[in-house]
Amino acid sequence: MSDPWQECMDYAVTLARQAGEMIREALKSEMNVMIKSSPADLVTVTDQKVEKMLLSSIKEKYPSHSFIGEESVAAGEKTVFTDKPTWIIDPVDGTTNFVHKFPFVAVSIGFVVKKQMEFGVVYSCVEDKMYTGRKGKGAFCNGQRLQVSQQEDITKSLLVTELGSSRKPETLRTVLSNMEKLCSIPIHGIRSVGTAAVNMCLVATGGADAYYEMGIHCWDMAGAGIIVTEAGGVLMDVTGEVLAPQSMLPSHRWTI
Amino acid sequence: MSDPWQECMDYAVTLARQAGEMIREALKSEMNVMIKSSPADLVTVTDQKVEKMLLSSIKEKYPSHSFIGEESVAAGEKTVFTDKPTWIIDPVDGTTNFVHKFPFVAVSIGFVVKKQMEFGVVYSCVEDKMYTGRKGKGAFCNGQRLQVSQQEDITKSLLVTELGSSRKPETLRTVLSNMEKLCSIPIHGIRSVGTAAVNMCLVATGGADAYYEMGIHCWDMAGAGIIVTEAGGVLMDVTGEVLAPQSMLPSHRWTI
Repeated sequence: MSDPWQECMDYAVTLARQAGEMIREALKSEMNVMIKSSPADLVTVTDQKVEKMLLSSIKEKYPSHSFIGEESVAAGEKTVFTDKPTWIIDPVDGTTNFVHKFPFVAVSIGFVVKKQMEFGVVYSCVEDKMYTGRKGKGAFCNGQRLQVSQQEDITKSLLVTELGSSRKPETLRTVLSNMEKLCSIPIHGIRSVGTAAVNMCLVATGGADAYYEMGIHCWDMAGAGIIVTEAGGVLMDVTGEVLAPQSMLPSHRWTI
Repeated sequence: MSDPWQECMDYAVTLARQAGEMIREALKSEMNVMIKSSPADLVTVTDQKVEKMLLSSIKEKYPSHSFIGEESVAAGEKTVFTDKPTWIIDPVDGTTNFVHKFPFVAVSIGFVVKKQMEFGVVYSCVEDKMYTGRKGKGAFCNGQRLQVSQQEDITKSLLVTELGSSRKPETLRTVLSNMEKLCSIPIHGIRSVGTAAVNMCLVATGGADAYYEMGIHCWDMAGAGIIVTEAGGVLMDVTGEVLAPQSMLPSHRWTI
């Protein structure tokens, strides 16, 4: 049986590279930074320009497909999650890194059909690492097959997470208190590279044993999610249930 | 006037590459992990093997020079800091990363004469990034000149630090409470890649605005220190005084 979505995946890889090129170009010049939900939740014209490019390219090639993009939602666009082929996109995952030229910035593209993840593409464009995952066919980074770590002992684990962009005192305290509890188990350590997508891909490579974060959105996870599962990992919500794409949607945004 | 230490610096670069090759080879196989001061303070035979290689190579070429190495000190060797040319070495900075194959592991070599830093070499060997700094001659990464960020506004800053390897409840609480205070200013964010040397080099590139950490050792800083200052940055102790090489020594170890 031929793979009906392989062409879409190839196109996603091409678009991610094109978007990555735009981001690398933008990194060479000065940037105007705008603020979203908090002084640490940033957006730039590049986020918007890259999303527009991705949206128009996908609409032109696949006019019947749906699209959920971080900046379109931020601009007030409603998202209705149907059974239609749906592209879930974060044009610049790690915007704060981008603003600072901290070298981890990713283009994230997830593709869902009948509410099932079909493939994911995460392009960490400064590192030039192209991560891909296709349902039933494994996960890869620059062509090399990925496998999550086999670590089952939390005391020997290295975790990835982020402090997040909320600056509400209660939220910050919860985030830090979670870190304190984990470190006290003890665990080997916690790392933060500043993008959910790259953090998740680092779990897919086996370099970190787990990633957790509260308050992230579907576009932060949709690309990397299937990369993790195809590398042998699992996605869970806070209750330990398997995380399905619909529970990643904005209406189900995880908050603490 | 010819540069009396250029030959030593060239040799340090060669040795760092050789050490990096040993580390990359070791990353391909299973490793035996031993514990030092806490369940999160790890060491492997690779740390010891790489340090031995560096020590014997330097001793053979420069028999009159002194040597301070993380694993030699851990093995009980006394360090007397004289005016002699002194190589200060961390064979594997980011041992926990190394154990987990988290892709930031550095060979760090600092060179001090008459208690003045002359040059530093930090080789982030998985990324294949060779950082160098030579007194009065600037700092470079893979031949490209480095410049720290010009950011003077803390509320627009991205910081790098680590949770550290101590699992003492008081220490952990202080570390997290410092993070809370910084985030509440607010700042843009905090990143942790798991090696002091690479964190400092990220400051030298301008990708992060500052790095701070308590409890690190001279070998964590000696290589990257001059890379930061030659990129236009400053090294300070907790009182705000300029940090001199002698205050980085084990006897002056920063503790909290």
